[in-house]
Amino acid sequence: MPKGKAIIGQSGGPTAVINKSLVGFIKEAVQADFDQVIGARHGLQGMLKKDFVDLSSLNESQLYGIGKTPAAALGSVRKKPTDKDIEQLVEIFEQEGIRNFFYIGGNDSAETANLVSEGAKKIGYEMKAFHIPKTIDNDLLETDHCPGYGSAARFVAHAFQGDDADNRSLKGIKINVLMGRHAGWLTAASTLGKSNENDGPHLVYVPEKVFKIENFLKEVKEVYDSLGRCVVAVSEGIHNENGEYFLQTYAKESGSGLAGKKDSHGNVQLSGSGALGDTLTNLVSEHIDGARVRADTFGYLQRSFLADVSEVDAEEAERVGQYAVVASQERDSGSVVLKRQFSEKYFCDVDVVDLHKVAKHTKDMPPEFLDETKPYVTNDFFEYAMPLTGGIEPKTQLFV
Amino acid sequence: MPKGKAIIGQSGGPTAVINKSLVGFIKEAVQADFDQVIGARHGLQGMLKKDFVDLSSLNESQLYGIGKTPAAALGSVRKKPTDKDIEQLVEIFEQEGIRNFFYIGGNDSAETANLVSEGAKKIGYEMKAFHIPKTIDNDLLETDHCPGYGSAARFVAHAFQGDDADNRSLKGIKINVLMGRHAGWLTAASTLGKSNENDGPHLVYVPEKVFKIENFLKEVKEVYDSLGRCVVAVSEGIHNENGEYFLQTYAKESGSGLAGKKDSHGNVQLSGSGALGDTLTNLVSEHIDGARVRADTFGYLQRSFLADVSEVDAEEAERVGQYAVVASQERDSGSVVLKRQFSEKYFCDVDVVDLHKVAKHTKDMPPEFLDETKPYVTNDFFEYAMPLTGGIEPKTQLFV
Repeated sequence: MPKGKAIIGQSGGPTAVINKSLVGFIKEAVQADFDQVIGARHGLQGMLKKDFVDLSSLNESQLYGIGKTPAAALGSVRKKPTDKDIEQLVEIFEQEGIRNFFYIGGNDSAETANLVSEGAKKIGYEMKAFHIPKTIDNDLLETDHCPGYGSAARFVAHAFQGDDADNRSLKGIKINVLMGRHAGWLTAASTLGKSNENDGPHLVYVPEKVFKIENFLKEVKEVYDSLGRCVVAVSEGIHNENGEYFLQTYAKESGSGLAGKKDSHGNVQLSGSGALGDTLTNLVSEHIDGARVRADTFGYLQRSFLADVSEVDAEEAERVGQYAVVASQERDSGSVVLKRQFSEKYFCDVDVVDLHKVAKHTKDMPPEFLDETKPYVTNDFFEYAMPLTGGIEPKTQLFV
Repeated sequence: MPKGKAIIGQSGGPTAVINKSLVGFIKEAVQADFDQVIGARHGLQGMLKKDFVDLSSLNESQLYGIGKTPAAALGSVRKKPTDKDIEQLVEIFEQEGIRNFFYIGGNDSAETANLVSEGAKKIGYEMKAFHIPKTIDNDLLETDHCPGYGSAARFVAHAFQGDDADNRSLKGIKINVLMGRHAGWLTAASTLGKSNENDGPHLVYVPEKVFKIENFLKEVKEVYDSLGRCVVAVSEGIHNENGEYFLQTYAKESGSGLAGKKDSHGNVQLSGSGALGDTLTNLVSEHIDGARVRADTFGYLQRSFLADVSEVDAEEAERVGQYAVVASQERDSGSVVLKRQFSEKYFCDVDVVDLHKVAKHTKDMPPEFLDETKPYVTNDFFEYAMPLTGGIEPKTQLFV
């Protein structure tokens, strides 16, 4: 098979280090003997429109700048390709002499790489297809964790350290809503900056467990009665036993104008709105007389804050991008994964697995990371997650 | 007058560097010859209950830790003292031999120091009273700027850099709501990380100007039509020509369940809720067909994020705390201020002014900091604010 050109795109919600993977890829790709290294603007959308950028001749300073900038430098897209899209894509690749497809994203992007690989086989066009993992949600299978998660976790842990100190200063009940539609990894990271048991968050609600409003209100009241304050971390994806999002069911039952806003696809919109936090605030205010109750929804800052990136995460993100090129010299397709080495000091090696193992599925937090008796995480989670953040310095709390 | 003991308290909304002022005060106070250096938990509330902490014997490592922790280390309070409170306070000071009162806070705290000073004079008890400025709102008179503002401005500028990159990646309309009930200083800081005109925020709405929803919708649509996206910064305190908050009037007119939530004092609650952002999102969605519209409310992170503090701000915060003690050797009362030196390199000197000049009033952004023709800031604002943040590195945006 002729070497051909290489193309890369970025897809889905950005992370603070997604461009490190792009830079790692570019650095390795320009040294491989591809005919050209091309970037597509806005992922699949740009590939289908031949909206291309030449990545072969960027200088060191440009690469440094790209790597330091959060969010997808090439632009991102939320698009599941149809059969027709894939056909058209492979046609374009053939026209352009592109024989190496790289896609940075979550499980949908692994699926896209898989479809491209199969689509090319169908028409007998020889090409390679690789998935480079990223997601703050940390919900990909096979990999120890996802590039992007460590930085988001670091931001969330630091945010809770500050917010807990704020809550000690002016006591009350504080509810913080975190990203995570299906899995609670990021919400769980809210605990990583705690120095002692009385630090917040005191309660952590994740989608891995069914959310019951009566338990929630009881648990918040217990902490509030005991400490005079309570800091709560809640995943945007909390749901009932039928898997219906809390906002959805609450909106149905209460007819509240506050809740259940839908996006253009008719899905309940979870991010980019304060509705969940405000709904919970109202319920807690009604339940606990006289308490000062506030909510913040951390929103897009979790995936885009550039000034508090985990160095471990940034380095790994660059390495998975680079390794995708290396792997493409040896096999036809795959998804790059991180493999934790069980030595004294934390280190992850890179490897590659079959695309179908990563495509479509998501990974919840395992039971051993969640406390069985209360809405909280275990020490096993702490040991798993802490190294990914690059380390969180404990805060000093002496007087209140 | 005998030297007596010194007492310090913290009041109002915390900042990321308020404890630097506490540390600066403690370091200087333990070297002055006060009989004792006392901290009061939760400001006036702790003083009235004699809820005291001895600050004389903290070691270097404890002081370092306190200085690095955001939010009021001694605890804060929102309390305007009554005449009776002041009488009682001076009585307690007399009983305890406290002749030096220091209060870290905003204009209400300057007023409290003033009342203490006058209350003591009335009964002929000789004592000193000083105000140490802090507020992320940057709305105190006399001082060039307020300790706490630089770090909050840095956080906001970085947050917008990331959010703008995110918005370029996945285009749409993004509305971010910033703290600032009366003044737009913090909202204006959203512009400080911009590298070029097309970077967001594209529109900046501050309480210094009357907010008109029809203009807002028109201006957002213009940017969106021209760039395919729009990032907006909005102060929580936007209001109509009668000074009524937008949420208040909107709730009245529309009867919307989304808006106009009140706190326990019957004031419209502006912080700790996503209502303003969600209300504006709904209005924009109705006005601009098919646009992806999202809102984030940055919330308490603006005043408590410990991992992105301005070094300039931290150093100045420590210096004003220290200088309050120095000033107390020379005069009976006052409010510490920062005075900008007009030399080549940015530097602020410390000085002290009469309490009544700072008490009660607030400082809006001056007209020369606001663009006359559009909702935006001027270069004069940029030059004023940038040095306070410690400098914001530009981001690289090459492809989209």
